[in-house]
Amino acid sequence: MPTATAGPQPATAPITDREIFAAHEGGKLSVESTMPLDSKRALSIAYTPGVAQVSRAIAADPSRHATHTWASRLVVVVSDGTAVLGLGNIGAAASLPVMEGKSALFKTFGGLNSIPLVLDTTNVDEIVETLVRLRPSFGAVNLEDVAAPRCFELEERLIEALDCPVMHDDQHGTAVVVLAALTNAAKVTSRTLADLRVVVSGAGAAGIAIAEILVNAGAGDVLLVDSKGTIHRERDDLNAIKARYAAKTNRDNVIGGIRQALEGADVLVGVSSSKVAEEDLAGMNDDAIIFALSNPDPEVMPDVAARHAAVVATGRSDFPNQINNVLAFPGIFRGALDAGARRITPEMKIAAARAIAALAEDKLSADYIVPSPLDPRVADAVARAVGEASRH
Amino acid sequence: MPTATAGPQPATAPITDREIFAAHEGGKLSVESTMPLDSKRALSIAYTPGVAQVSRAIAADPSRHATHTWASRLVVVVSDGTAVLGLGNIGAAASLPVMEGKSALFKTFGGLNSIPLVLDTTNVDEIVETLVRLRPSFGAVNLEDVAAPRCFELEERLIEALDCPVMHDDQHGTAVVVLAALTNAAKVTSRTLADLRVVVSGAGAAGIAIAEILVNAGAGDVLLVDSKGTIHRERDDLNAIKARYAAKTNRDNVIGGIRQALEGADVLVGVSSSKVAEEDLAGMNDDAIIFALSNPDPEVMPDVAARHAAVVATGRSDFPNQINNVLAFPGIFRGALDAGARRITPEMKIAAARAIAALAEDKLSADYIVPSPLDPRVADAVARAVGEASRH
Repeated sequence: MPTATAGPQPATAPITDREIFAAHEGGKLSVESTMPLDSKRALSIAYTPGVAQVSRAIAADPSRHATHTWASRLVVVVSDGTAVLGLGNIGAAASLPVMEGKSALFKTFGGLNSIPLVLDTTNVDEIVETLVRLRPSFGAVNLEDVAAPRCFELEERLIEALDCPVMHDDQHGTAVVVLAALTNAAKVTSRTLADLRVVVSGAGAAGIAIAEILVNAGAGDVLLVDSKGTIHRERDDLNAIKARYAAKTNRDNVIGGIRQALEGADVLVGVSSSKVAEEDLAGMNDDAIIFALSNPDPEVMPDVAARHAAVVATGRSDFPNQINNVLAFPGIFRGALDAGARRITPEMKIAAARAIAALAEDKLSADYIVPSPLDPRVADAVARAVGEASRH
Repeated sequence: MPTATAGPQPATAPITDREIFAAHEGGKLSVESTMPLDSKRALSIAYTPGVAQVSRAIAADPSRHATHTWASRLVVVVSDGTAVLGLGNIGAAASLPVMEGKSALFKTFGGLNSIPLVLDTTNVDEIVETLVRLRPSFGAVNLEDVAAPRCFELEERLIEALDCPVMHDDQHGTAVVVLAALTNAAKVTSRTLADLRVVVSGAGAAGIAIAEILVNAGAGDVLLVDSKGTIHRERDDLNAIKARYAAKTNRDNVIGGIRQALEGADVLVGVSSSKVAEEDLAGMNDDAIIFALSNPDPEVMPDVAARHAAVVATGRSDFPNQINNVLAFPGIFRGALDAGARRITPEMKIAAARAIAALAEDKLSADYIVPSPLDPRVADAVARAVGEASRH
């Protein structure tokens, strides 16, 4: 039976605050012209009078907006700054460095242009209205760091209002990578998803989306735990989205806290900042799988988790098995845009997860259940799989 | 006395439609990461966990938004597509190639990042509201190709609503370059601005702004002509902005059409698409100055104009004396942003015009009253002058 060796990897030189702030000076994005504008001729092509031909052509045939502007392949990274990393509601302005980083990742890993748009409003109607007005400016929306439960309504409303791919990455990017990792963790421990009873600690953006994709992908059972305990059908304090999942999860109607939830569970996926005590893990089944994804402080440290689990993963780059959204979102958006898809469907998300999982198969072990976030094969493979799934 | 030699310059290979459309495929802008994200270390600096430090710092001290994101030096090029080049109201989507070109010019000539935001609404309240919501995302607004007279209200409302530089370039960029060119044309013909009676044909965005800057800079008299004839104090069909200028211009209360306006005039500035007949020019004073700025078809062709004028300019790159906004807007915005100015004042615009004019002084002639749009000295000189003017 494989076991996790989850100690920290050899340290490189520690990253200093000074280095971080220097790298952020003036921001992290640059807009460049795709052609040099260094001659009258170039100006006449890219600007007046030449550009008038292109504008006239789009006015006559709106489909040329997709081929002769940058908009149809431009991903806007949209946030209201209400749930930024682990920092909470720090506001739009303070969220911008994260959104710039995300846009930089879209280009680096997905080859897609991307710009951050941070909004000084948390009103769902106003955010939807703003993006509807800006619709001709972009080709897809990556929602980011919007607090739950508002993020669920906002994503649904944007999907209704916009005829282009919209995805809240904190939900679905995370869920896709968790599904990929869990598929391979099950394989490493000689099981399938259908064999697994999965406890998801945290019922915010990521927790709900993980529950959704696991249910869609055929997990044995899923059990959501929020700050009040297990989500079950008798609870009368649930918001609309949790109530929806109370009906689809927790088959045995387990009532209690994290310890009760973990009794006889095969998998723990932690996506809240709540710590999980070692005693709570003791009741898990043999060959347990623990994904402690809180950043920078996992719900349980990998060395502790490894005493109770056959496979351990975190969100951190300094431990094996890093569950990192960058494995998913660049390829998902590129696949959707390449295919001209107007929606990112559940099937496309599951296809993305399978593509990620497949890339780790050749070297599969308890310490290697997902490819490295820097693996250059990932975005292409995900984009292909997502594009194919969009055509079914 | 210098005379204009306004025939076409030697032709280069003609620009084909094919070449224009090829250059526009996929759009003309690219967003790049300012640091390579090719290692775990780089990811940890630019994205999680490092970026959290920067977001936390901005939340604690909002002034760091200006230094540690790209927003404070990002110019958004905003249009509703209602007055695109000479094409009229072709809509936001069809206007996008022009706005992409403008953003490319901001980078090429001003060294500023810029992105186009085109809006699927022509409602002033809604455009203002949209930009107010997006305020933390950018540092300045270049309004572009918004129809008159709505453009005047929109610019005023945005200036009130936003604590950052806002300029409608079709108004003020054009006006600044016209003032620069006219200052030098007067010098070439041994006069000053105060000696000149200027007829402005066209009372849209550019015409009104030209009248404004000429009045502010001390031109002898300015006379606006719209499609109904001269703008004078007895007209009862004027919109609010034209009525405002009826009070400040046309000192002698000339009533009539373009021919009556040009009787005894020193300068014609054409910024409408209306043609001016050669007979209309006959009544102009000796040493007349004609700027026929309509693009691509000047109000009067330079060879015809030259029979009645000592100095002739157009908006075209294939004749001498090209009056091109690119001489103004990159330096104006850079100067305003460098200086941390919240407004682009009349003094800053006049300073920009003087800086542009000064750069042509060493080689001044009837055929060289403004520097080339490609002259690399221009944006720096304009930015410096604008910055200084902002501090007075």
